[in-house]
Amino acid sequence: MTQTTSQTLQNTTLQDDPKSKQSSSSSSSSTTGMRLIVPLQGIVQGRGGLILGSVIPCAMFYFLQFYLKRRRSKTSDTPTTSRSNTEDMLSRTVSRSNLLLSSRGSIGRPHVSSRVCSIAKSNEDSPYYFGLDKVKDDEYHRFENPNGVIQLGLAENRLTLDLMENWITENLNDSILGGASGIATYQPFDGTTELKVAMAGFMSQLVGRTVSFDPSQMVLTCGATPAIEILCFALADHGNAFLIPAPYYPGFDRDVKWRTGVELIPVHCRSSDNFTLSIPALDQAYNQARKRGQKVRGILLSNPSNPVGNLMTRETLFSILDFAREKNIHIISDELFAGSTYGDDEFVSMAEIIDSEATDKERVHIVYGLSKDLAVPGFRVGVIYSYNESVLTVARKMTRFSAISAPTQRLVTAMLSDTAFIKNYSEINIERLKGMYDLFVEGLKELGIGCTKSSGGLYCWVDMSGLIRPYNEKGELDLWDKLLNVAKVNVTPGSSCHCIEPGWFRCCFTTLDEKDIPVVIERLRIVVETCKSPS
Amino acid sequence: MTQTTSQTLQNTTLQDDPKSKQSSSSSSSSTTGMRLIVPLQGIVQGRGGLILGSVIPCAMFYFLQFYLKRRRSKTSDTPTTSRSNTEDMLSRTVSRSNLLLSSRGSIGRPHVSSRVCSIAKSNEDSPYYFGLDKVKDDEYHRFENPNGVIQLGLAENRLTLDLMENWITENLNDSILGGASGIATYQPFDGTTELKVAMAGFMSQLVGRTVSFDPSQMVLTCGATPAIEILCFALADHGNAFLIPAPYYPGFDRDVKWRTGVELIPVHCRSSDNFTLSIPALDQAYNQARKRGQKVRGILLSNPSNPVGNLMTRETLFSILDFAREKNIHIISDELFAGSTYGDDEFVSMAEIIDSEATDKERVHIVYGLSKDLAVPGFRVGVIYSYNESVLTVARKMTRFSAISAPTQRLVTAMLSDTAFIKNYSEINIERLKGMYDLFVEGLKELGIGCTKSSGGLYCWVDMSGLIRPYNEKGELDLWDKLLNVAKVNVTPGSSCHCIEPGWFRCCFTTLDEKDIPVVIERLRIVVETCKSPS
Repeated sequence: MTQTTSQTLQNTTLQDDPKSKQSSSSSSSSTTGMRLIVPLQGIVQGRGGLILGSVIPCAMFYFLQFYLKRRRSKTSDTPTTSRSNTEDMLSRTVSRSNLLLSSRGSIGRPHVSSRVCSIAKSNEDSPYYFGLDKVKDDEYHRFENPNGVIQLGLAENRLTLDLMENWITENLNDSILGGASGIATYQPFDGTTELKVAMAGFMSQLVGRTVSFDPSQMVLTCGATPAIEILCFALADHGNAFLIPAPYYPGFDRDVKWRTGVELIPVHCRSSDNFTLSIPALDQAYNQARKRGQKVRGILLSNPSNPVGNLMTRETLFSILDFAREKNIHIISDELFAGSTYGDDEFVSMAEIIDSEATDKERVHIVYGLSKDLAVPGFRVGVIYSYNESVLTVARKMTRFSAISAPTQRLVTAMLSDTAFIKNYSEINIERLKGMYDLFVEGLKELGIGCTKSSGGLYCWVDMSGLIRPYNEKGELDLWDKLLNVAKVNVTPGSSCHCIEPGWFRCCFTTLDEKDIPVVIERLRIVVETCKSPS
Repeated sequence: MTQTTSQTLQNTTLQDDPKSKQSSSSSSSSTTGMRLIVPLQGIVQGRGGLILGSVIPCAMFYFLQFYLKRRRSKTSDTPTTSRSNTEDMLSRTVSRSNLLLSSRGSIGRPHVSSRVCSIAKSNEDSPYYFGLDKVKDDEYHRFENPNGVIQLGLAENRLTLDLMENWITENLNDSILGGASGIATYQPFDGTTELKVAMAGFMSQLVGRTVSFDPSQMVLTCGATPAIEILCFALADHGNAFLIPAPYYPGFDRDVKWRTGVELIPVHCRSSDNFTLSIPALDQAYNQARKRGQKVRGILLSNPSNPVGNLMTRETLFSILDFAREKNIHIISDELFAGSTYGDDEFVSMAEIIDSEATDKERVHIVYGLSKDLAVPGFRVGVIYSYNESVLTVARKMTRFSAISAPTQRLVTAMLSDTAFIKNYSEINIERLKGMYDLFVEGLKELGIGCTKSSGGLYCWVDMSGLIRPYNEKGELDLWDKLLNVAKVNVTPGSSCHCIEPGWFRCCFTTLDEKDIPVVIERLRIVVETCKSPS
């Protein structure tokens, strides 16, 4: 599907330039093919009229068309060669004469890949990216820009930046310069052993020491984004698919699909279940995909869920594992917010589930990173933790494209090894998260707006379905537009997260200060009242 | 071709496990296909015996096989569904009973992508990687491990590490903590404006201020490796090709091909031309590729050449540009060693060539990085500099998978902005490079071994063709083996660089100290004398 779209886009782009269109043999020959077949099909249909008179010739022509298409694709370069020889001679003459005149002329625009065209246009119509760009141009600041756009669209934790920056200031020199060997020379692309050991200890602490992570099963990458991409690349071929509980993080559409060509199939979760994943829904999505002829290679979970913020229970995780075994598929468990849980529910890592199993661990892969829990997205530190040796081998090789720089590795190793700091940081972080969550939810409540019960993440999943009119995606986007342009508050609409029910919004509350909450609520109030008044 | 190979590899891997074989519909059905056809073919051959009796039925069965294979690939998902339904029911029963017994059984090994199988095995048989691994296990050190393997296989500059480390020690705190905003928060993935400005200034200094680089045409990546990959991804589709003057850097085979699916077509350069690129050879390679039905999307140059170390003249660069225009293809100019030139020849950047042109700049893309010239490969700093807005747009988006961490960006910005340090560093670096080059070449000369005239890079291109017997790749690899295992010196054989003439080796001389040169030469002498003595 992606290829077709991108091909169309490329053709559109190239249409401006007659020369490049000429030299694009495949697109021009397929146009000829269509011209050849379509009128004939028209004649046959016109003469026949009834079932046998039209269906049989149509079927014959369909097969002829199919046959011609096949032949064409096999021999598609033959016409190119003959056409381009003339072209070459012409352009060579032009070029040589240019050389003599020492003024070089232009010969057509060079082709770029069809992937470029598809990726270049991929975000243009998404409210998620539109909102982020809008904030970039005019971001709210209590003193410096009090009329700017308030950012509730980015899951960035700024609540504990002070703690982090203090630690860095005090420990920078010792961390980076203190190591045995130089930081300038080549380091293992998949991370130093020291950092892996420190990371394993930290991840184990996050899950309450219920699991011990083995540094040799770990591959480090410059952020969780390449970690997810590398895993999808390794587990699925172009055109294969992953099931993903929806609503899901809008960024997965680019992180998973762009370069790997892997598809995502949403498994819709409902407000009536507090947006938890149900196995029958998973099964249905799997079967439908198979009926469409799609190969499903795994399930991509986010736990704690982004954007909903709920946690998966131990029982659900076991059921998912059972399901994955039945279908012989993989599980990628994105646990990026594992250390940002503040509710009463217990966070259970897929690592704990698989740790209790004696065999068949090879289908489980965990993604982690420091951007959310340690509030250092600028550091670009991600983790692949896998029980599958083939996947680890390839992931290690792939890190040559996604390596963390040595100074940052040193800095993070020292930070994670400072267990007293990490313990203190984590406690304060959760306290502040909980505080902001309560404040924000309380504020929304005053406006008559509810949220799902969330226990983790840097956001709430807010129900504004009562405010939208009509009750569909259009109504949702109208409200989103008002929030962004009237209230000047950037939130992520549920449709960007592939939510099947309209009127839900992800609101990140960790880019603000407590003192900003009343400002947000007051801004929202204006829109809420407008929406309520005409009814 | 890659896909076929990888499919074979995957099947091989899966053969160990009968359960996974069962559930692998495509592999099992193709096995059945083979069983169906091969015995019949045997019978026909057995009965016929002579030409008509065997060739005609064989041809018929070949086409039948071909037809069945086609049909099978079209309908491959139908048998899967029916087979898997039974399987599903069975496994679900097993799974549920396991759940009750709370001991979960295993159901087959999960599939990994065919790309995994192909990449996992891709380096196994290359002397280049074998040698590097050998050094890793037992690296020579003058005092600590005087009998270890001497590293002449890695283009890493350790000659000026002292200067770099001193600068870092003195400036670390100010560089990283001195900025206006925090380093922990999200930064632009494609690099901060500050670093782009500093990088543009540095690159301009490298080319003697003949060109000024525009920071807005720059995309920063975590190393030159992802820079090259991103460019190839953007310029060519899966199965398209780039022409590349050979001998070339062995790493390109993974960097360009692995994830993009782009092919490399060597354009062979000869010792009789001092391994410089000739336009007729380029033209011939282009035409042959087209005859094979391959779409050529560009030329990938390395200037200064890696592994030869020679520089491209201004006239050659103009001719290449003309050629690229004639064929309407791209040029990627990898100028990673631009600041490591020490000979009499002048380094001319492709940026200078295209800068003098009024139009048609969109086909030129430059790759640069700090690993070689500033001796900081551990920092992972690479540059895409392009004149093509579509390519830049996509490259910027792609950096989410290959971003440089904020602390490192800060550090490098400060370093490049310290123009007095950079000037001093560059002068001393070139002085030391030249000193080592002279010493090394002199040492080889004493052994009767010559090199091509090189002016840049961290290596010599050494002619040991007189020492190999037989005069072919086997002879070359025998000598390489002796050098590695008898002399304990790791060099890169020409065959790993796709050199068409046997007996050439890349020897990197910048991982050593001047005092190590006599040790290398003495170790080489033993092998050289063994090779010479029997003749």
